[in-house]
Amino acid sequence: MVGGGQLARMTHQAAIALGQSLAVLSVSDDDCAALVTPDVQVGHHADLEALRRFGADCDVITFDHEHVPTEHIRTLAAEGHAVYPGADALQYAQDKALMRARLAASGIPVPPFEVVTGPGAATPAVHVADVAVRIAAFGRVHGFPVVVKTARGGYDGRGVVVVPGIEEAESAAAQLAGSGVLVIEAFVPMRRELAAVVARSPFGQAAAWPIVETVQQQGICVEVIAPAPGLDDDTAAAATRLALRIAADLDVVGVLAVELFQTDPQPEAPDGLLVNELAMRPHNSGHWTMDGAVTSQFEQHLRAVLDYPLGRTDAIAPFTVMGNVLHSSRRRG
Amino acid sequence: MVGGGQLARMTHQAAIALGQSLAVLSVSDDDCAALVTPDVQVGHHADLEALRRFGADCDVITFDHEHVPTEHIRTLAAEGHAVYPGADALQYAQDKALMRARLAASGIPVPPFEVVTGPGAATPAVHVADVAVRIAAFGRVHGFPVVVKTARGGYDGRGVVVVPGIEEAESAAAQLAGSGVLVIEAFVPMRRELAAVVARSPFGQAAAWPIVETVQQQGICVEVIAPAPGLDDDTAAAATRLALRIAADLDVVGVLAVELFQTDPQPEAPDGLLVNELAMRPHNSGHWTMDGAVTSQFEQHLRAVLDYPLGRTDAIAPFTVMGNVLHSSRRRG
Repeated sequence: MVGGGQLARMTHQAAIALGQSLAVLSVSDDDCAALVTPDVQVGHHADLEALRRFGADCDVITFDHEHVPTEHIRTLAAEGHAVYPGADALQYAQDKALMRARLAASGIPVPPFEVVTGPGAATPAVHVADVAVRIAAFGRVHGFPVVVKTARGGYDGRGVVVVPGIEEAESAAAQLAGSGVLVIEAFVPMRRELAAVVARSPFGQAAAWPIVETVQQQGICVEVIAPAPGLDDDTAAAATRLALRIAADLDVVGVLAVELFQTDPQPEAPDGLLVNELAMRPHNSGHWTMDGAVTSQFEQHLRAVLDYPLGRTDAIAPFTVMGNVLHSSRRRG
Repeated sequence: MVGGGQLARMTHQAAIALGQSLAVLSVSDDDCAALVTPDVQVGHHADLEALRRFGADCDVITFDHEHVPTEHIRTLAAEGHAVYPGADALQYAQDKALMRARLAASGIPVPPFEVVTGPGAATPAVHVADVAVRIAAFGRVHGFPVVVKTARGGYDGRGVVVVPGIEEAESAAAQLAGSGVLVIEAFVPMRRELAAVVARSPFGQAAAWPIVETVQQQGICVEVIAPAPGLDDDTAAAATRLALRIAADLDVVGVLAVELFQTDPQPEAPDGLLVNELAMRPHNSGHWTMDGAVTSQFEQHLRAVLDYPLGRTDAIAPFTVMGNVLHSSRRRG
């Protein structure tokens, strides 16, 4: 597993039960996964040579985060490594602009959006004023507030600015200067956020956990309730179908978490479900499975990337609630 | 944890969840726990210097097996190490003669037994014929078959001989030549075997899982059913009380598994429960807790030896069955 964070740490626990030992490529030997597994290589996930050295001893390479450049993943795959998820899938978890465009092209409901090059981007020279004009124009069509996000690198509320009205467009554009491509999108009047977490193997087997409700505060997922309280069976089935369809369409291998907005039914989304984000790894919204489901997302991710039969995803209690407790400045789900 | 076997391997999984990393002293660097934890020292558990070097970096020392000499445990404790369970407790899990005598003296029901020095023991010189005479005499009083066990070192059916009649007394004695002290005991006409697994912390907190039925074949525990089917509440409570009393009497810290014979009610055992064996570590009869209880025996053992609050022991399903699959010649529970 490339990356030595908490997800790798928890994946190692699952690896032990499967008779495996997780090798970890981490940027530091005191990363939290590096402390608990014997097979640690220290190296950067963006360094192709470090990835090659690491991959030489691995049967399968997978990821604890989305930060490995896709060109490196393509190189490793071309050199004969099994890398899951592959670059063709992972690019959509790395780049929100690409993901929105791809899903929209496949007829999968997403919030109304536009893609723009951010101010301060190298080529062509784009200025804050140009971006502010695009935000203002989008807001005039879709109404304010408007949400502006960096296409790459944002997480847990970072790289996201909510623009309340036309007069804040310029300051919002200025905040995101130098962040590359931006996605401008409508602030969706939603009832709540849901997540559909599924897994898919190279063989094509897929498995889905019950749909959960996720509670966000300041862009951070603080609570997950499994299953989502009061969710009707039809909407739950629609959310599951959506996630399984995305997993198959994008050829995802491993765990796929699909973050959804639940809105009132709309012409483009008759069941009220809009896709917000994708993660192709174990995810905050699946941590409840460690204690609350027959198979945890960490074991399932390993089963999937190893092309083992997937495990049962039944909940073992009527409800399981996950609370996300953060106690350092290093925040990542 | 001293010992690098499967119990240490599974304890490391639990350590990760508790924010710890389990250091392991194992006799080989390819012992199954040594493969999955970064902090491995290779050394023998009977080598005091190896134990000292290992203990220097540990907050608490505990065990994956019963084979550390108690004099070494006493030395480590005298040198300021926290060692759980302590030598005063662990001696009763190491020596069946000592255990039977101690429990009987405390009024805890055990099968009728006698302790004899085995043939071939160094001092005084004891011969097969002497031991055969003692077996025959015991059988005349308590009836045949008679069970003869080595006091130390037996497990999974090794070091146990069932003597069907007086004419087999000599061959049984010969089989156990050189095994040191022996326990001769009555072959108890039992209904089935049960186990009471509890944990106790230095603070004195104790917690008990539901009573289980254990199914033995050729001395090996092949199946555990949790809870024991059809066990009435009074007998279950009596078994739990017995285990908690032993844990407190012997000052056990960590997990204590009490293997029990369930017999018809007897004058000495009105609830029909006789203590057969003690183990002071995670045990075969508690493996079901990994998937079947709120807190696994491995997490609980760590909580106990670290003097953390103990976790809940509730079962999470109406029944959980553990099957013991052995696939090598190295057999240990």
